[in-house]
Amino acid sequence: MKLLVVGSVALDSIITPFGEVTDALGGSAVYFSTAASLLTPVQVVGVVGDDYPLAELKKLAARGVDISGIETAKGESFRWKGKYSFDLSSRETLETRLGVFANFSPKIPASFSDAPFVLLGNIHPELQLSVLNQMKSPKLVACDTMNYWIDSAKDKLMDVLKRVNLLIINDEEIRQLSGDWNVHRAAKWVLARGPQRVVVKRGEHGALLVEKDRSFYCPAFPLDEVFDPTGAGDSFAGGFLGYVARTGDTSDNGLRRAMVYGAAMGSFAVSKFGVDGFDGVTLKVIQDRVSRFKDLTHFDVAEALA
Amino acid sequence: MKLLVVGSVALDSIITPFGEVTDALGGSAVYFSTAASLLTPVQVVGVVGDDYPLAELKKLAARGVDISGIETAKGESFRWKGKYSFDLSSRETLETRLGVFANFSPKIPASFSDAPFVLLGNIHPELQLSVLNQMKSPKLVACDTMNYWIDSAKDKLMDVLKRVNLLIINDEEIRQLSGDWNVHRAAKWVLARGPQRVVVKRGEHGALLVEKDRSFYCPAFPLDEVFDPTGAGDSFAGGFLGYVARTGDTSDNGLRRAMVYGAAMGSFAVSKFGVDGFDGVTLKVIQDRVSRFKDLTHFDVAEALA
Repeated sequence: MKLLVVGSVALDSIITPFGEVTDALGGSAVYFSTAASLLTPVQVVGVVGDDYPLAELKKLAARGVDISGIETAKGESFRWKGKYSFDLSSRETLETRLGVFANFSPKIPASFSDAPFVLLGNIHPELQLSVLNQMKSPKLVACDTMNYWIDSAKDKLMDVLKRVNLLIINDEEIRQLSGDWNVHRAAKWVLARGPQRVVVKRGEHGALLVEKDRSFYCPAFPLDEVFDPTGAGDSFAGGFLGYVARTGDTSDNGLRRAMVYGAAMGSFAVSKFGVDGFDGVTLKVIQDRVSRFKDLTHFDVAEALA
Repeated sequence: MKLLVVGSVALDSIITPFGEVTDALGGSAVYFSTAASLLTPVQVVGVVGDDYPLAELKKLAARGVDISGIETAKGESFRWKGKYSFDLSSRETLETRLGVFANFSPKIPASFSDAPFVLLGNIHPELQLSVLNQMKSPKLVACDTMNYWIDSAKDKLMDVLKRVNLLIINDEEIRQLSGDWNVHRAAKWVLARGPQRVVVKRGEHGALLVEKDRSFYCPAFPLDEVFDPTGAGDSFAGGFLGYVARTGDTSDNGLRRAMVYGAAMGSFAVSKFGVDGFDGVTLKVIQDRVSRFKDLTHFDVAEALA
């Protein structure tokens, strides 16, 4: 089933201890749709400037992503430049130039408006509401956000939360949003304000799915080599919602499996610069990794201790 | 089967955002043996000063811990005073007074020397070697250490590693020991230097069991309330080795179960000051928590994706 994402399409310049890259295909919608397209048809709504290298977007199309909802506006594309610390544990933003993204106003093509699964990417909550108003009757809507919107548009963000099924957010952001440093309490704070489920992304420590009476924890895949953490969280979200859209399964157990598919996609994303980590990744490769997650986390039922 | 621990018996003064306590029963051997004694008979070797409140030690004995190996030396007991940050994510040591612990030279009573399972607690590597030399033929020896010994006695510590089956260590320490910030590579560095297995404790993010070709990840139990993180890692080790000693099972799968028992004990430890979190914890309570770990981490095998 179709999956729609609205978010940023950018050009990233990244410096890691292992090398650097300039103006590579990036942005949350790009990572998300690259990962999700391995599992389900994806439609992207976004904007690029008239300086965007269209050959790069065609790579996305070659993955089966419908990019007809990416408009080209007069002006400069969204550019981000960042540098990671020696151990990849932190990064510094060296430059953010919003360009045409500053005036982005998502228009959902008619052929996209019946998508049953939707990710409202990390854009102004006002725009997330506008996207919601343009959709017919989605089966599951997830949203992302960031510290900037929590600071500057919290009221609107709370309006969005009332209308979505799932919030996907990282641990720092949910602490900021809820005002509670305990992520488990913070997730319950969110559950009381609209969404039925919350996914808390914790970087190298994995991700947590919190429902009213049940939680599921999926670690990050143990990797001896991490090359570039950029886009890991967006790739996680792409794998997660891609699996949900592919199976149509929104049950507890279906979403647990979706978490593992998300974590698998995150592990591919960090293995190379940009979205190159997905090169050569097939369904079989994905399922092999999912099996390895099972071996990583499962244990026999404990026998009764006499 | 019997489990021997050699480590610190201290008096802790702890300040958390929720209250404070002065001269409470503490030290790594105390947390370890309190947790382990819920699963198996434990013998402790340590030292206290002549100012130690013996009634406190009797509480340990009441749990079934054999404290006859704790000697009383002339002088002051080991005291530690620490203060946690508002979110418990970091702590500051306000005072460390080693007292009689500075001259500790562990003497293993004859009746303890045949213990099949041993934890060499966080003491000078030279003393860890001395304990090893006093043991008959233990089935499994684990050791702990800390940044101080990695800095000041690394050669001796490497000698210890050659003679133990398992290293239990936290993520910062294994990074320091190996010189590698990637904990998975760091664990493999250790595996190449003696131990067959490494357990990396990652605080609120859980713990990782690394073997040559297989890893197991156990998250920390999701708690809405954490009261005092002191001793969580030692309680984890106590649950882990307590389970191994109780079952005698040192197989891959046995150690996975042991990890979960360790994580359960860590979750009890942090719920109150000192070892009070273990009050009222029975085998049934422990096994209920272990079952909840299963629900927290297990997912159905993914069906084949057509």
